[in-house]
Amino acid sequence: MMPLIDRARLLADLDALAAISAPGAPGVTRVAFTPAFDEGRRWLRARFEQAGLRAAVDAGGNLIGRREGDSGLPPILIGSHSDTVFGGGRYDGALGVLAALAVARALRDQPLRHGLWVCDYLAEEATDYGVACVGSQALAGALTTDALALRGPDGRSVAEALRAVGGAPEHLNEARLAPGSFAAALELHIEQGPRLERADARLAAVSGIVGIRRVRLLLTGQPDHAGTTPMDARHDALAAAAAIVLRLEALARATPEAIATVGRIEARPNQGNVVPASVALAAEIRSLQPLLIAQIWGALLEGAQAECAARGVTLAVQALEDAPPALPAPWLFDLVSNVCRRLDPRAIALPSGAGHDTGYLAAIGPTAMIFVPSVGGRSHCPEEHTSPSDLVLGAQALLEAVLAVDAGGTTSTDETE
Amino acid sequence: MMPLIDRARLLADLDALAAISAPGAPGVTRVAFTPAFDEGRRWLRARFEQAGLRAAVDAGGNLIGRREGDSGLPPILIGSHSDTVFGGGRYDGALGVLAALAVARALRDQPLRHGLWVCDYLAEEATDYGVACVGSQALAGALTTDALALRGPDGRSVAEALRAVGGAPEHLNEARLAPGSFAAALELHIEQGPRLERADARLAAVSGIVGIRRVRLLLTGQPDHAGTTPMDARHDALAAAAAIVLRLEALARATPEAIATVGRIEARPNQGNVVPASVALAAEIRSLQPLLIAQIWGALLEGAQAECAARGVTLAVQALEDAPPALPAPWLFDLVSNVCRRLDPRAIALPSGAGHDTGYLAAIGPTAMIFVPSVGGRSHCPEEHTSPSDLVLGAQALLEAVLAVDAGGTTSTDETE
Repeated sequence: MMPLIDRARLLADLDALAAISAPGAPGVTRVAFTPAFDEGRRWLRARFEQAGLRAAVDAGGNLIGRREGDSGLPPILIGSHSDTVFGGGRYDGALGVLAALAVARALRDQPLRHGLWVCDYLAEEATDYGVACVGSQALAGALTTDALALRGPDGRSVAEALRAVGGAPEHLNEARLAPGSFAAALELHIEQGPRLERADARLAAVSGIVGIRRVRLLLTGQPDHAGTTPMDARHDALAAAAAIVLRLEALARATPEAIATVGRIEARPNQGNVVPASVALAAEIRSLQPLLIAQIWGALLEGAQAECAARGVTLAVQALEDAPPALPAPWLFDLVSNVCRRLDPRAIALPSGAGHDTGYLAAIGPTAMIFVPSVGGRSHCPEEHTSPSDLVLGAQALLEAVLAVDAGGTTSTDETE
Repeated sequence: MMPLIDRARLLADLDALAAISAPGAPGVTRVAFTPAFDEGRRWLRARFEQAGLRAAVDAGGNLIGRREGDSGLPPILIGSHSDTVFGGGRYDGALGVLAALAVARALRDQPLRHGLWVCDYLAEEATDYGVACVGSQALAGALTTDALALRGPDGRSVAEALRAVGGAPEHLNEARLAPGSFAAALELHIEQGPRLERADARLAAVSGIVGIRRVRLLLTGQPDHAGTTPMDARHDALAAAAAIVLRLEALARATPEAIATVGRIEARPNQGNVVPASVALAAEIRSLQPLLIAQIWGALLEGAQAECAARGVTLAVQALEDAPPALPAPWLFDLVSNVCRRLDPRAIALPSGAGHDTGYLAAIGPTAMIFVPSVGGRSHCPEEHTSPSDLVLGAQALLEAVLAVDAGGTTSTDETE
């Protein structure tokens, strides 16, 4: 008989983790490398151990609860991330970690040929340090020394912040997973968009994860007196930045298969009576098609250089991240699609507009993702919501996918591209 | 014989005050309501007392050193402000205060019919509290309860910050100067623009101070996931703000007799992977012609409303300041012009593009200003510079203007409009 997810316990776990949030901050706020995140991690670690898993933080800062396989076969990785954006919601990341924990509990007395790793990948969301997916990048050997040297607003480098959560930045190779070292990596996540809801479906097998290019643009003008400097004698970094914000938006609007965002702006000296001397922008472009990302970036850079040159503003570009689009292993996508359709006849396939840790893991082994609906498509905000039945159905799909991989997946791992 | 400014002592005072600056901040940083500002005030107060002045802070937070007049005639006010912008220079404000102190010293043993007030007006520069010219507004009865309720980044209101520097926000009427209560208010200042230098002149009598309208624009959109929200479903407050920044710049560029600036921008949540939910902009428009200020503001507001409506972003406007243009009293302008031409045959008359405390005082009594050159027109930056000879010449002009007012000015005060 098929084991079942313990509905009440999963929902109670989701409530308990959502209650761990930075005091005074909106919604659920467990930004990586902050005290609320550390508290969430301590809570999770205790839960992992109560479920009979051996819990440890690896060199890449990932909290992993392990169970050995009866046949010594490579592990099946299930999980997501416990960090959130500032003012985020209850389910982005947390659902995937706690559903994985619920799967481990439901299978506790079930023989499994493969090992099972319940994973809380470190720092999936982009933080003020300027890098996202820190833990899954470490597993994939993709975390660069440039990224480790980035500094957050508290003055610490990513390496120092990583060490503070129990990672070992000087021994990142110990965290790295070799190709073939896992049988499958599966992630349950909320869709964070409106398409499941529009299709009246409750489950989706994810057909691909968009690639993301993230850059920081640094514009340097000149801080002059706002009252005495004629308009034609200014080197206004904010006006140049405004033109770049609008140009990127226009480029993305003109490209149906891509989206782009400037989510962050910092101006100096940021005083009403001084012409802005410098502005830093964080920009990102997302698409399933690398060519479109490259085209938009090329056009943005060309326009930004011309805009800055015309204003006597200098432009510097810092590459923060360049994650390629990631496709699921075909056999695993088929396996997950079958599980989803069995549980929900209306289940669909969807690409993911959001980046996920699974995008990095796809480079080293077979991966797949399952989506459940987001009410109104809202995410990264306190209003983020998914119905309890959909949360539990998603966890059940994850469980059944694990059993299907355990039953037959190993014979197919060589077929992955 | 004409008394003379003590050159060495004035220059040493300017050095000493410039050395009082926030640790680690660029240039000279004595932002009002910060510890460095308080330290500068303590230093100044001791200097005022050493010069034989009775020093006190009035209800409006102005530090004033007083000397009585021999004939009991109303005082002549001389001074400027000791606060600076963040990362400002050595002379903006400081010159006017320390030159006034040098005048008081040079005239210490000289009989004067009028009283003499050496003034350090509080918080001339716009701070993060969102209001400028706090002290001179208090003297003119122009400080609104709205302005007193504004809060700075430290959470204090302007009223609380005013109290912390020795002011009495609940007794502002005590600071208020009635019309006719002073014989003249004179301010020496650096030009902060390039025109004296271009004219090869060392002194200017100021023909008028521009009016300034300062507003805060609050744009509220919706914080959605930057990866899953289609471009046409966004309510991006930063993109709307960018359009407003460029519109204000274009309006000012099209209006030769006006300038305008967005000097400050704050975005929330300001994370790379969240569509910006809200943006606050501080905008200002300056002109000698109130009609041009009103026209630009009207066009900006109309455009901003349309831009926000098209994006599903709400717009709120908070008026911060609306200082009318200020003209000097004609008799006092003539008097100052004569003094300047006597000391520098190439002296000119100039309007001031910058706002000054004198702009508020002009509403209640006869005022005039004297400018000395700014090298390269630079100001509000560490590079701000004026030659020592020009600094001393400006102070000497201030001294001679005080003596001229004391000799004959009182008979003319009734002629001011």
